[in-house]
Amino acid sequence: MTLLVMKFGGTSVADLARIENAAGKVAREVARGHDVIVIVSAMAGETNKLVGWVNQTSPFYDAREYDAVVSSGENVTAGLMALRLQEMGIPARSWQGWQVPLLTTSAHGAARIEEIPRANIDRKFAEGMKVAVVAGFQGVSPEGRITTLGRGGSDTSAVAFAAAFGAERCDIYTDVDGVYTTDPRITRKARKLDRIAYEEMLELASLGARVLQTRSVELAMRYKVRLRVLSSFEEVDDTSGTLVCDEEEIMESNVVAGVAHSRDEAKMTLISVADRPGVAAAIFGPLAEAGVNVDMIVQNISEEGRTDMTFSCPVDQVARAERAIVAARDEGRIQFADLVADTEVAKVSVVGIGMRSHSGVAARMFAALAAEGINIKVITTSEIKISVLIDRKYMELAVQALHDAFALDRAG
Amino acid sequence: MTLLVMKFGGTSVADLARIENAAGKVAREVARGHDVIVIVSAMAGETNKLVGWVNQTSPFYDAREYDAVVSSGENVTAGLMALRLQEMGIPARSWQGWQVPLLTTSAHGAARIEEIPRANIDRKFAEGMKVAVVAGFQGVSPEGRITTLGRGGSDTSAVAFAAAFGAERCDIYTDVDGVYTTDPRITRKARKLDRIAYEEMLELASLGARVLQTRSVELAMRYKVRLRVLSSFEEVDDTSGTLVCDEEEIMESNVVAGVAHSRDEAKMTLISVADRPGVAAAIFGPLAEAGVNVDMIVQNISEEGRTDMTFSCPVDQVARAERAIVAARDEGRIQFADLVADTEVAKVSVVGIGMRSHSGVAARMFAALAAEGINIKVITTSEIKISVLIDRKYMELAVQALHDAFALDRAG
Repeated sequence: MTLLVMKFGGTSVADLARIENAAGKVAREVARGHDVIVIVSAMAGETNKLVGWVNQTSPFYDAREYDAVVSSGENVTAGLMALRLQEMGIPARSWQGWQVPLLTTSAHGAARIEEIPRANIDRKFAEGMKVAVVAGFQGVSPEGRITTLGRGGSDTSAVAFAAAFGAERCDIYTDVDGVYTTDPRITRKARKLDRIAYEEMLELASLGARVLQTRSVELAMRYKVRLRVLSSFEEVDDTSGTLVCDEEEIMESNVVAGVAHSRDEAKMTLISVADRPGVAAAIFGPLAEAGVNVDMIVQNISEEGRTDMTFSCPVDQVARAERAIVAARDEGRIQFADLVADTEVAKVSVVGIGMRSHSGVAARMFAALAAEGINIKVITTSEIKISVLIDRKYMELAVQALHDAFALDRAG
Repeated sequence: MTLLVMKFGGTSVADLARIENAAGKVAREVARGHDVIVIVSAMAGETNKLVGWVNQTSPFYDAREYDAVVSSGENVTAGLMALRLQEMGIPARSWQGWQVPLLTTSAHGAARIEEIPRANIDRKFAEGMKVAVVAGFQGVSPEGRITTLGRGGSDTSAVAFAAAFGAERCDIYTDVDGVYTTDPRITRKARKLDRIAYEEMLELASLGARVLQTRSVELAMRYKVRLRVLSSFEEVDDTSGTLVCDEEEIMESNVVAGVAHSRDEAKMTLISVADRPGVAAAIFGPLAEAGVNVDMIVQNISEEGRTDMTFSCPVDQVARAERAIVAARDEGRIQFADLVADTEVAKVSVVGIGMRSHSGVAARMFAALAAEGINIKVITTSEIKISVLIDRKYMELAVQALHDAFALDRAG
């Protein structure tokens, strides 16, 4: 008897027909001999409705009450899914976070999972339950209050359950059929990957491929949980979707796994900054305090004690960033000649664990962009990715060119 | 420091504006020095939506999952109410049934309250909480599953909390401003009662005056909880609404407190039943098994070993009753010449604890009906009420005539 975790997101349980469809996928795994823990999100739209009510009631809300309200959507789905499975003749029951219990910290709205004691669910499996339907996204604090796990919380729940129960695999059912080499809306040559390494998925998730939340991939990597991303809306078999796994499970792969993009970036440059020790802290301290998510940072060489400092951030944070920097100057914390914002840029990245052992990836990337006449404004690199900022109008062209340059339409 | 329980029904918290209105009434009591336990229903329409989903998913549902799903509506209201009170500067927090905990039996869908331990809520009051907002209608079973209390469950929750915490009073806020001598839609002379005895309210509640559920009044009577019914939609003061209390608190009152009516009744008569010991059981046993709610029962005198047996039931149960009786005859359990159903009847009742000490109420009632030419088909009496079945088309006329005959437009 092996145990499987299956997670269904909001669009996969958006109405009763879709809950029935999802239940069919669970029934298939039960028929194959699995015990199953199903993690469900709220029906699409429900959480937004509840969040709207909270915001209208109390703009600076008590996060404990926010959690008590918004967690209710998952409870509804869990009960309905259990009922649907029972109708199919499968012994199933729903579990709310506090019933498991899924123990978390008290950081309401963004709680961290502390522990998932197995005793309650294991006892029910021993008594004949085949499916535990667990309300995702929620847990219970040491004070006995309901907590929620923040963005992507149901994915995180799913991975945590898979880790706690030693599941064979954690299947994330969603509205796409897997992880692609790039966004299929940008190039039809985009190819679904059969497998991808945790590290690659992490870079792709944080770079704008919205299939899985970063946090759940991190958790999966830490606990070696094999994650599979697949579609709720297609017939599935054992080869469906994309398996996110340890790189040792990936025999042969392209040097580059995929090309990611992020459209709504901005580039800001402080020109002629007085360059002295501590200047970077003096700039980025105030930005962090203002809640600006600084991504790339580039400092040019210093000439005659002055330098240019460039960073990127989401385009909708530019005004906030400008206010923070001007305020820091007015307080005498930094000096610079001018502040220039370019709000028409996008980020394009190539990602692949093969880059660790293959050289020349950067050169090939830059050559491909140059061949299209695309100017690179900022470059940053990590061990397994290279990112560039370019004019936004060239973003699709750049993605297509890089997809071709690394032959991503063909399996490695 | 005295404690008050305030309960708001579904129409009183139907949207955010109404929740704000209800919170204003709570704030007023806090300003007057009360600690308050607020019991809230689901926003009007929410519970029906959830029940509909359950029924569509599983017609013969697992009541444990039904409870897990439908209880979510109250949780949403409780959180929103707590947030609104906090916005008004009042220390408030929400409580779900399992957090209190409100301990119930395992009879899902119609659980009975076993105990409400005070420790958790008392500790929070001691720490400065002024208002505990409790999700009504729900509790938790010995197995740790969520239970619901059945119809009128939030009223029952409210009374149970008032009893457990020794509340000064339990205020039931609803969409009417009190208990009337009769239905104001039938006669404009209907007068709001300042006070009514538990026993009278019980008879009125079960006779079709839909202000309070029978069960909550029974509980209030048993634990001597002073209940006040009043409107969410009006300015209130200490004399608002109707106080449901012990008869000792009612100094002076009319012999008759009110006239109740029930429109959708049916009268069924088994003609020429073979009259022998056990015949009543042979008739009403099968009806009970079929789930028919038999109300009034009248047996005529027996002549030559045969009698007529008449009973009333809700009109929408007539077909079911006929099937049960015919089946009992076919099985040889009863014999009769004919079965006659009259589906055009209504029930009118006068109720008053003064009837215990005043004679002549029945005579005055029958005379008033006779003066209007209204024929009485069936009569039943109890210690504090007299009920008659009449042709439905005379129902309003009968109510008006009785209201006049007992001078209910004037306080006693």
